[in-house]
Amino acid sequence: MTNLVELAKAIPALDQVAVRAARSRQRQLTKPPGSLGRLEEVSIQIAGIQGTDRPHIARKALVIAAGDHGVTDQRVTGYPSEVTAQMIGTFLWGGAAVNVLARHNNVSITIVDAGVRADVLPNDPRLRRLAIGKGTHDISLGPAMTEEMATRCVATGVEIGGEVAGTGADAIGVGEMGIGNTTASSAIVAVMTSTGPEHTTGAGTGRTKEQLLHKIEVVRRALEVNKPDGSDPIGVLARIGGFEIGLLAGVMIGAAAQRRIDGFITSAAALLACAIAPGVRHYLIASHRSSERGHRVALHALGLRPLLDLGMRLGEGTGAVLGMSVIEMAAACLSEMATFSEAGVDGGTT
Amino acid sequence: MTNLVELAKAIPALDQVAVRAARSRQRQLTKPPGSLGRLEEVSIQIAGIQGTDRPHIARKALVIAAGDHGVTDQRVTGYPSEVTAQMIGTFLWGGAAVNVLARHNNVSITIVDAGVRADVLPNDPRLRRLAIGKGTHDISLGPAMTEEMATRCVATGVEIGGEVAGTGADAIGVGEMGIGNTTASSAIVAVMTSTGPEHTTGAGTGRTKEQLLHKIEVVRRALEVNKPDGSDPIGVLARIGGFEIGLLAGVMIGAAAQRRIDGFITSAAALLACAIAPGVRHYLIASHRSSERGHRVALHALGLRPLLDLGMRLGEGTGAVLGMSVIEMAAACLSEMATFSEAGVDGGTT
Repeated sequence: MTNLVELAKAIPALDQVAVRAARSRQRQLTKPPGSLGRLEEVSIQIAGIQGTDRPHIARKALVIAAGDHGVTDQRVTGYPSEVTAQMIGTFLWGGAAVNVLARHNNVSITIVDAGVRADVLPNDPRLRRLAIGKGTHDISLGPAMTEEMATRCVATGVEIGGEVAGTGADAIGVGEMGIGNTTASSAIVAVMTSTGPEHTTGAGTGRTKEQLLHKIEVVRRALEVNKPDGSDPIGVLARIGGFEIGLLAGVMIGAAAQRRIDGFITSAAALLACAIAPGVRHYLIASHRSSERGHRVALHALGLRPLLDLGMRLGEGTGAVLGMSVIEMAAACLSEMATFSEAGVDGGTT
Repeated sequence: MTNLVELAKAIPALDQVAVRAARSRQRQLTKPPGSLGRLEEVSIQIAGIQGTDRPHIARKALVIAAGDHGVTDQRVTGYPSEVTAQMIGTFLWGGAAVNVLARHNNVSITIVDAGVRADVLPNDPRLRRLAIGKGTHDISLGPAMTEEMATRCVATGVEIGGEVAGTGADAIGVGEMGIGNTTASSAIVAVMTSTGPEHTTGAGTGRTKEQLLHKIEVVRRALEVNKPDGSDPIGVLARIGGFEIGLLAGVMIGAAAQRRIDGFITSAAALLACAIAPGVRHYLIASHRSSERGHRVALHALGLRPLLDLGMRLGEGTGAVLGMSVIEMAAACLSEMATFSEAGVDGGTT
């Protein structure tokens, strides 16, 4: 835990000189002030992250972490646990939604087995195999993992975030794959935002009202059995988390430490990352509003307004990929547009 | 007008066989049904437009039409009329927001002078010079243009839409540049949707509350003086329109006639296009919700839900460019994702 505490303190603040310079530059560009809306706000945040009033996103990367969840024994999902490993195969082959979106948006993907139950393609060198366990224990019966494992999840994620930053990625999105993980996420969001599980639990891949009520009941049981304490994020992860969730919280911390933009969808991981290292908050950009219920609660608690609201709820980092493209546009407008004086355009009557 | 009436009838209906096939394919792709949200809906519409369950958007084009507005004499804007011509110069040079966005999204731009007051770069071969007039007359005093000019605007737009489709563009967005044109647009949206001008008029490039109230008053006067009749769209264009607005209505009709997707922001032009040729409606995809007030009213009347809501209100086709990229993603997911059986993934318990 010492390392994480040190790292949390070491996350740099945004560069306020660059923020001010970017705000001033926005006023000089050939457009009415404010007319690019959210793109302007985001560009100023990115300027502060990169420390320049001409920020640039040349390389975009996505880390997808996968893990299995013992709570699937409680029949909380529409798909069997085996699908987690099968979908990793699909990611490697390139046939999943996130592959298609990443190809069309020039996003490189790193796939990490954080704790999948099955042996996934043991000979494929493209898969980072960090399996911290073989799926979590059923959180409705007891803790998901040990505290030591939880710490290792986050620390390993920090390393991977730093590594991906080291390859030159300017923006690092995160995505997850794990049958059963919306149950764990709902439990985490409930604890970290002090909200009742009925407000943080959505249908996930299930469909009927009965399935939803059952899932809420399972989340409630997980909270009663484990009694997680929101002021101890590693404890929360150990009790009701998932290997991939902890790993992605670490990726966000590691990326922020390297002054990289964190484009994210995985709100449970973001809540944990900010609880461990509050400075991460300034590096986060919420790419989209998932139609999963707990996502809204988490975004509100984080004080983040998502860029996109396309009714998506697939996960995998599909929202992060689209969001990173919008972020790229925001930076490009700030950096590449002409100013009124450069263009010889009359600057208005104000 | 005969030509337009014929053309209106000739717009093909969407291919319902392809629509059904696309819907069926969506259910077989490796994701929970519906989890790609709006991307799924849009992909099915595009399938119907292109007549295949594997639609593809390889080439994206934007037509920007520019025109000046006599109503600027009423001090309805924060910028002088000269800025219209100056911004065309910036578009040609590549320094405007829409240029930056188009470069990053692989969108080719056609710029058309539909009726700018000044002589714009007379020797630049990259500018389509169709100047139907030298700016409209002040609509608060009388009609903007003659009915013959209004018909010519739309007919010329139809030709350009067809030409751009002929270059192989799969999706054709439209954008406008014209100081004063939010005043004309607000008047058109008011008539075509039977809504009071106070609900269709926004601040535009102005800022203060007094400026807004004054602008609403000018729109109201334009309606009183000209008495436009919503059942006669060419008459509406002649009385309270603009050269660029009529031209873009024509582009949408011409593009739809060639079975091309119309990505649009220019809601006043879309209302006119659909009034002239109702079949256009099925080819329209609203790219974004502008923060301009009348845009919401127009989208509602058209029954369109915008893909993006980024608080943008710049015009130029900036929203269309971003929207076309989302549309490209929608088509790509439908066409390029693996099915459950191709990927060997368990298809769930449903």
